[in-house]
Amino acid sequence: MKIAALQMHAARGEVEANLARIAGAAREAADHGAKLLIAPELAVTGYGAGEEFPVLASPAEGEVAKRLAAIARDNGLAIVAGFVEKDGDLTYNSALFSDGIGTDAVYRKSHLYGDYERQWFRSETPSSVLVNLGGLKLGMLICYDVEFPENVRRLAQAGADLVVVPTALPKGASGSFIADKMIQVRAFENQVFVAYVNHCGEDGRFTYAGLSRIAAPDGRLLADAPAEGEALLIAEIDPSDFASSRTENTYLADLARQT
Amino acid sequence: MKIAALQMHAARGEVEANLARIAGAAREAADHGAKLLIAPELAVTGYGAGEEFPVLASPAEGEVAKRLAAIARDNGLAIVAGFVEKDGDLTYNSALFSDGIGTDAVYRKSHLYGDYERQWFRSETPSSVLVNLGGLKLGMLICYDVEFPENVRRLAQAGADLVVVPTALPKGASGSFIADKMIQVRAFENQVFVAYVNHCGEDGRFTYAGLSRIAAPDGRLLADAPAEGEALLIAEIDPSDFASSRTENTYLADLARQT
Repeated sequence: MKIAALQMHAARGEVEANLARIAGAAREAADHGAKLLIAPELAVTGYGAGEEFPVLASPAEGEVAKRLAAIARDNGLAIVAGFVEKDGDLTYNSALFSDGIGTDAVYRKSHLYGDYERQWFRSETPSSVLVNLGGLKLGMLICYDVEFPENVRRLAQAGADLVVVPTALPKGASGSFIADKMIQVRAFENQVFVAYVNHCGEDGRFTYAGLSRIAAPDGRLLADAPAEGEALLIAEIDPSDFASSRTENTYLADLARQT
Repeated sequence: MKIAALQMHAARGEVEANLARIAGAAREAADHGAKLLIAPELAVTGYGAGEEFPVLASPAEGEVAKRLAAIARDNGLAIVAGFVEKDGDLTYNSALFSDGIGTDAVYRKSHLYGDYERQWFRSETPSSVLVNLGGLKLGMLICYDVEFPENVRRLAQAGADLVVVPTALPKGASGSFIADKMIQVRAFENQVFVAYVNHCGEDGRFTYAGLSRIAAPDGRLLADAPAEGEALLIAEIDPSDFASSRTENTYLADLARQT
């Protein structure tokens, strides 16, 4: 299965512009034969929208979800994109999965990063919800979640083949370390694919690291974006290409042996 | 506190030669002002000694432990070295910590790798034993143990500042990945120091990757050895040098917030 990842320069608070950008990337991804397009954390509102989050929040089955589902349906692929989810009086930093033809799932970020996120969002108990797509089991995390090995492990133990991670990684030494080393290690230590999809540029509040990556079970990068500028990454995801890596690196089986 | 790590070409089954090599490195480490010398996994017997392990096994307070303690005492530093531990009819892949003046601890490998190790050794339930050295809390793992994020996390949550990892990493693509990426990620994701100390060369049974590393809490390498040849790495271990990294990367506190 081919997947696509949009390293995106989102416009802060401009939902229509951001949905149009995602729709454009969906067309391009479909032209490449991709069956999945992943957009960054809070791609719909921009990560830096802050005080606008409560106004721009939308329920799990609300207008934003319908618009994303329509983009998926129109282009014959599934979409994962970050949005602000409203649930009664509560607001979550969420990612929607939609295949546009009936399968939707919402993942809520479990590990909020710093005062900025904690001001606007409630955290959710870590979950292991997987969706099936093209014969693969797909799990979702958001940004800081993936920096905790426990979260990727939980999804791998639940049977995930591919972990998709919309993110908003800021520029800086820690950001480069996470993109250059940690994402590949998360893939390798669980023998799963990891798609880490970031913003780029700046939005008047934050400056982002770019460096989106799609890593394979053997730790190699199948696709990677530069630090600057938008990019649409395309990669072929086929677990059977990595059978020898799974035979050599038997972490999940050996962990089960211990416990 | 200065620490030293001996990337070692051990002689298979030659205990006297290997103890002499460790003693030589201890003298050199002491000359550099080091307060700790770390030798690789099964450094005393060689990792490849296989059928000789049962004969060369020694109790936790037996002859091998006494010889290592004497080397420590003679050179005014602590030693961590891998040896074959005999406990009644059972044999463990263990590491001894000895400061030569009364504090000893034995760590038994919890995650055995492959049929070779399982043929000769029993695995031990993962433990979180820490020893105090120069104001730092030191935890031990052996080789494959460190590839499981759970094991380093457990030690970090128990309060470890430094995790020492005698290893016997074989040459190959996975070996390079572990040395080049995973060790630094283990340090970063727990904000601890990690000393990963390997064999080099070949012993007639295995060929080793070298690439010993001492990684800091911010993920940087404080010292690193090449793939080929023996080396004595020296590094200054001071947690106060990495206060800003711990302020920025609050993984342990944020994990506690979740659970």
